[in-house]
Amino acid sequence: MSATVEMQRIPPCSGRSVELEAGDQLVVMDPMGQQVSDLTAFSREDLDEYLSSGRSIDYASKLWLSTGDVLYSNRSRPMFTILEDTCGRHDFTLTPCSKRMFELLYGEAEGRPGCEGNLAAALASYGLGVDRIPVAFNIFMHVSVDAASGAIAVLPPLSRAGDFIRLRAEMPLVVAMTACSAGQSNNFSYKPIDFRVERAS
Amino acid sequence: MSATVEMQRIPPCSGRSVELEAGDQLVVMDPMGQQVSDLTAFSREDLDEYLSSGRSIDYASKLWLSTGDVLYSNRSRPMFTILEDTCGRHDFTLTPCSKRMFELLYGEAEGRPGCEGNLAAALASYGLGVDRIPVAFNIFMHVSVDAASGAIAVLPPLSRAGDFIRLRAEMPLVVAMTACSAGQSNNFSYKPIDFRVERAS
Repeated sequence: MSATVEMQRIPPCSGRSVELEAGDQLVVMDPMGQQVSDLTAFSREDLDEYLSSGRSIDYASKLWLSTGDVLYSNRSRPMFTILEDTCGRHDFTLTPCSKRMFELLYGEAEGRPGCEGNLAAALASYGLGVDRIPVAFNIFMHVSVDAASGAIAVLPPLSRAGDFIRLRAEMPLVVAMTACSAGQSNNFSYKPIDFRVERAS
Repeated sequence: MSATVEMQRIPPCSGRSVELEAGDQLVVMDPMGQQVSDLTAFSREDLDEYLSSGRSIDYASKLWLSTGDVLYSNRSRPMFTILEDTCGRHDFTLTPCSKRMFELLYGEAEGRPGCEGNLAAALASYGLGVDRIPVAFNIFMHVSVDAASGAIAVLPPLSRAGDFIRLRAEMPLVVAMTACSAGQSNNFSYKPIDFRVERAS
């Protein structure tokens, strides 16, 4: 593992992409608390292989993944292993917030791109357009479920300042992540997200 | 609405596709009880628009959709409205069963295609390969969630012989559906699924 690497900051309501090699570790931190980061990933060897919520939930037999769990691709291959997780609550059921979602759920007309647009912009140089953005791994997003009715509620994140998740890449990946733009997901305060990559070699 | 239309039968462990126009109604029936049908759909005007679990769950604010709920595309447009639902419990979180899923979860080595392979075969003439099969709307699939831990369990379907769901197409669609091949999802008995299309005109 390399020496200490500086954190990089994703400004509020924006996105970034980064390339990882197998064995690299990605640390995603909430520097101020109660801030979500939507993350998606694609195999650099074949961009048709992408991070799959449905596979990951099926193989883990749980909705909410944490330390020790594996995030799978649509081809049922491990993309990430969660090595550390100081928060313990993330969502893997919802699509990233989007211009249309802001209109439908919040009655907004500003046309903000949301995580969907910010992920697509971060991935545009790979030829991955907005239709290729799947259900994301929504780090620090706090979604509760009523076990009887299936009703969900988006609650303020449980993350506190400095909470982080450490993901080990299990294949060469292009990863995109955001500082999320949805009011309800972030307790109505748009904050940055920090990340760093610790190279395996 | 047209006169009575004959049911068509999807044999056990197989799939079918059908084209719908806006306003057509698709009835999917479990003729024997406790049998799942995985369903996915694409816009015939642009096959990059597909049925999205994450959008549908977000806009309905619940995991389990039933009568009156709308199934959305990745572009946040209505694809189906659920007009009737005599069962009331379906899943929208898991990817279709697959050859690799059978190996990982059941220790099977037979190489059965599963719903993933059967959906891809049913959609092959549209140029939609296996990588394009998303999280499906798993009709009659009974997944429970522990609200505290997020643990899920795949239980025998609540559907009884003759239970059905009636979906109205909200845009021109190509739909693929299966008689599901996963043991646990179908109480370890592989049965057929019946469907009919009632044309709007």
